[in-house]
Amino acid sequence: MTQRVLTGITTTGTPHLGNYVGAIRPAILASRAPGVESFFFMANYHALIKCDDPERVARSTLEIAATFLASGLDTNRVVFYRQSDIPEIPELTWLLTCVTAKGQMNRAHAYKAAADANVAAGEDIDANISMGLYSYPILMAADILMFNAHRVPVGKDQVQHIEMARDVAQRFNHLYGQGRELFVLPQAEVEEDVATLPGLDGRKMSKSYDNTVPLFEGGAKGLKDAVARIVTDSRLPGESKDPESTSLVTIHDAFATPAQREAFRADLKGGLGWGDAKQRTVELIESHIGPLRGTYADLIAHPERVEEVLQEGARKARATAKPLLAELRHAVGLRPMVAVATSGTKAAKSSAARLPEFKQYREADGRFFFKLTGTDGTELLQSDGLAEGKAAGAWVKRLKTEGSAALAEAPVQLVADRAAVEAALAALVAAQE
Amino acid sequence: MTQRVLTGITTTGTPHLGNYVGAIRPAILASRAPGVESFFFMANYHALIKCDDPERVARSTLEIAATFLASGLDTNRVVFYRQSDIPEIPELTWLLTCVTAKGQMNRAHAYKAAADANVAAGEDIDANISMGLYSYPILMAADILMFNAHRVPVGKDQVQHIEMARDVAQRFNHLYGQGRELFVLPQAEVEEDVATLPGLDGRKMSKSYDNTVPLFEGGAKGLKDAVARIVTDSRLPGESKDPESTSLVTIHDAFATPAQREAFRADLKGGLGWGDAKQRTVELIESHIGPLRGTYADLIAHPERVEEVLQEGARKARATAKPLLAELRHAVGLRPMVAVATSGTKAAKSSAARLPEFKQYREADGRFFFKLTGTDGTELLQSDGLAEGKAAGAWVKRLKTEGSAALAEAPVQLVADRAAVEAALAALVAAQE
Repeated sequence: MTQRVLTGITTTGTPHLGNYVGAIRPAILASRAPGVESFFFMANYHALIKCDDPERVARSTLEIAATFLASGLDTNRVVFYRQSDIPEIPELTWLLTCVTAKGQMNRAHAYKAAADANVAAGEDIDANISMGLYSYPILMAADILMFNAHRVPVGKDQVQHIEMARDVAQRFNHLYGQGRELFVLPQAEVEEDVATLPGLDGRKMSKSYDNTVPLFEGGAKGLKDAVARIVTDSRLPGESKDPESTSLVTIHDAFATPAQREAFRADLKGGLGWGDAKQRTVELIESHIGPLRGTYADLIAHPERVEEVLQEGARKARATAKPLLAELRHAVGLRPMVAVATSGTKAAKSSAARLPEFKQYREADGRFFFKLTGTDGTELLQSDGLAEGKAAGAWVKRLKTEGSAALAEAPVQLVADRAAVEAALAALVAAQE
Repeated sequence: MTQRVLTGITTTGTPHLGNYVGAIRPAILASRAPGVESFFFMANYHALIKCDDPERVARSTLEIAATFLASGLDTNRVVFYRQSDIPEIPELTWLLTCVTAKGQMNRAHAYKAAADANVAAGEDIDANISMGLYSYPILMAADILMFNAHRVPVGKDQVQHIEMARDVAQRFNHLYGQGRELFVLPQAEVEEDVATLPGLDGRKMSKSYDNTVPLFEGGAKGLKDAVARIVTDSRLPGESKDPESTSLVTIHDAFATPAQREAFRADLKGGLGWGDAKQRTVELIESHIGPLRGTYADLIAHPERVEEVLQEGARKARATAKPLLAELRHAVGLRPMVAVATSGTKAAKSSAARLPEFKQYREADGRFFFKLTGTDGTELLQSDGLAEGKAAGAWVKRLKTEGSAALAEAPVQLVADRAAVEAALAALVAAQE
């Protein structure tokens, strides 16, 4: 069975070399594995929790998306979208909020860490803690459950939040599933040997330590300047050097073959100067990153191309999200009002006299279309153009027989609100029975 | 200035006579006041907090909507909608969640009452408390702020929640408004002399006391049977009676003119039998309720008519909600990616060669239409049919010049995702400049 894997990236910064090696490159590699369907999203709702600088959130979304695309993410193979393009996610968040125990949220790591720090500082336990920080595991559960993801690759600190998503999914299934599993129970996938790249000073590479090597920003010169600042000891060329004494070697190794790694160590021990060693490292990294930099710069200069890719991704993501949310809404009681219960009575018959209507037509370009019109003449749904008139007819038939269940696959756009479309289709299905 | 007044009704029960006298009738009366624009909504997201019976939530939504309509709510004058038809509300809930202090939620009455009861019972403070109960004041703030309501009529217990909505609006304005007031600060409107109808036994009429008089359910017979069960003393006909000794008089008075009230009291003191007094009360109530009952029954038998009314209400509500949310999304940094910054450069010119396009056309029925197509040929936006070709041209011009700001008023339906439409319009506006 295809395994669905979901990864979100919070849009608050500019990706650096550490992000590339530790997260972006392995995620793209993993997305090429057979039997895997990957969902990648720009987590900009999450970004709002920790960043109230709108320019930065917007800019970071563009930079992260462009980085993934330039680094070779195949958007024909994966679903690549921006969280805020999926209105089903905040709605599901509310449905899950109603079945989440507050006691469970009190134990969430991210909140507990902040609360413990307050207590240690003699402050009120909730000082400066926002509801966003407190309740984001519910948004995270919605991100995951919305697409029935099987696996979520995370760091160890996030394992607990995936378990919370499992719990809330289980509770929802139990309360509302009537024996069916509305949600898949997701599994955390902890990468034990995740490559954490050290920064210029040997500590973990992180913007907050100001020790990062840029990925694309600043061009080849930016890379060279940063590598020049990597801390080494003061041994001179000709003197033997300890490869373990600097982060330069680890950064080099992240892009090197085993043979290159071995040679680099031997040369350092044999007296290679730090200057030459840095030059060799820059060339190695540049041989990998350089060819991607042009694509990146091009995308940054043409954000509308990134927008198009994300819109296409949102369409794919919503093709999964919409029918599931429709099912969940029905399950909890958020339902369109339809006269199914009274069908066959006199009342139902008089209303059947004016049912919603499908109309098929052909446009000047030769393509076939159909649309659905409500009893009051408003347009509810519009098909894409189809090459074959037969195909249009077949879709109309399916929609009339299966109702909203066929909506997810049908080549159509909703012109009116979902509930109106669902109600109209339900009325047509009822009339067929 | 027109005052916008917002009222939500949680959809968990069947309206009884107490709801009618205490809430429904005064709300409908208030909606007829000059200078008032009323928003009424079926709060079915709120219903999920206290009710996990989907049939009941769905049924209650129909019954409450039908009750308002049968009781004379003029939906041409008010905006009457179902909360779950407005996807902008859960999205705004998340935006507000990120700027709400957790400390403030700890002090919310509804939560504190439940937490105090737990502590008193020796339980964990958060035992059996859901995140829905804890965080619903944020959903309530979104309900109010989404429509920039000036006044919210509430009971005393809800005043604090309106103050929280003010606080969160103020914080949001301060953080993201850049000097502008994105949100109106709402005002609680406490009705001091709200008519609380007593039930059969003299306590407040409430489903939980099982002492209600039905409104429409059960027909005239249901009303008569309930009134017959109102507790009175055992004085016989001919004996003088104390009008204050029974809830019958208060229930009678809720439908009586001052003259009728006076006569009823005098007659009871003069020896009117309880049976006759009850019969007179039933006739009085029936003279008010009876004429509405037929409309109510008709709507319950034709839920699709209620659905149509609510859909129309949702369209009106979203005409307000969509442009405000678009503005809020922009303010916090959830923005479509457009190449405005690079306009004038070579890159921008090459992309300008393929701008989104407006097309105007006329259909067989003689009406004029226009649509907007993206650079890749997908349809983004579709106009309604217009009688005048000139009007279509004028709208196209406004959309090209003002961009998404003109969307709210334009006679159009979005065919693609909002972000795609906004991005295309932004590109057209930029190209004009």
